[in-house]
Amino acid sequence: MCQIQQQIAIQATYDEKYQYCWGCGPKNEAGLHLQSYPSETGTVCHFQPEAYQTGGVPDKLFGGMIAVLFDCHGTASAAWFAHQALGFDLTPTTRIERFITARLEIDYKQPTPMAKPLTVTAQLESLTERKAIVTMTLLSAGQVCAEARMVAVRAKSD
Amino acid sequence: MCQIQQQIAIQATYDEKYQYCWGCGPKNEAGLHLQSYPSETGTVCHFQPEAYQTGGVPDKLFGGMIAVLFDCHGTASAAWFAHQALGFDLTPTTRIERFITARLEIDYKQPTPMAKPLTVTAQLESLTERKAIVTMTLLSAGQVCAEARMVAVRAKSD
Repeated sequence: MCQIQQQIAIQATYDEKYQYCWGCGPKNEAGLHLQSYPSETGTVCHFQPEAYQTGGVPDKLFGGMIAVLFDCHGTASAAWFAHQALGFDLTPTTRIERFITARLEIDYKQPTPMAKPLTVTAQLESLTERKAIVTMTLLSAGQVCAEARMVAVRAKSD
Repeated sequence: MCQIQQQIAIQATYDEKYQYCWGCGPKNEAGLHLQSYPSETGTVCHFQPEAYQTGGVPDKLFGGMIAVLFDCHGTASAAWFAHQALGFDLTPTTRIERFITARLEIDYKQPTPMAKPLTVTAQLESLTERKAIVTMTLLSAGQVCAEARMVAVRAKSD
């Protein structure tokens, strides 16, 4: 049961209209296809940078790309935390309620190497009906490269 | 004289090793080639989104792409403000001293339309030998869509 949950990316449970995000939309053909998963302590996203995603300093990741990772993983995590708080799992037929970014704060702690896979983790700081606050960490080989805090709000239904 | 200055993008004055940034490096063939210019009130960057840069909601720009705009324009602006404070202009032979992002805070005020060109402006909040604090605004047709504040630090020479 746990294995099945792990195989469903949070982004794969977005309503069809949200699946075209450049960062994490499964249906954006030009997109980066980031995938976020529930984990034991919150959520996790693994990412292997490509050479063109440098910020200019050789072998170091572009700060804007780090923000992309935090933006997509943060909103996915907010959606999951709200879904989980209702007692729901992710299933192949889940259509999760989406959250969007209201505020994103990023502290760049040290240059982020590009050679090894990166890990972004997220934890829930607080949750109300309208708003989730999520804290995130970007790690390379266990070393913290950047930290972030996101205020995400529930997307309006339409 | 002023016209000549306007034609030189701040990013075009970066040292060669910084010209490969995915967001704003003139030499990154897969890059977005963002360009920042000095303006009368600070700096400015114009950007026309492409359809694939959506966040998923039709016709609205991806929040991660907004962060990309602020990251590249903020560090370019910090470099320019420090350069200008020394009494220098941008010339075809300028090699400006680079700044890198230490902290970036973004407030997403309203969804950002993609159809029309966007403008990012920046102003200098404070400047020391080591650090520049820059505030930025993202506008669509004169309407504020997002605001940001960046702490940028002088890149170490090597």
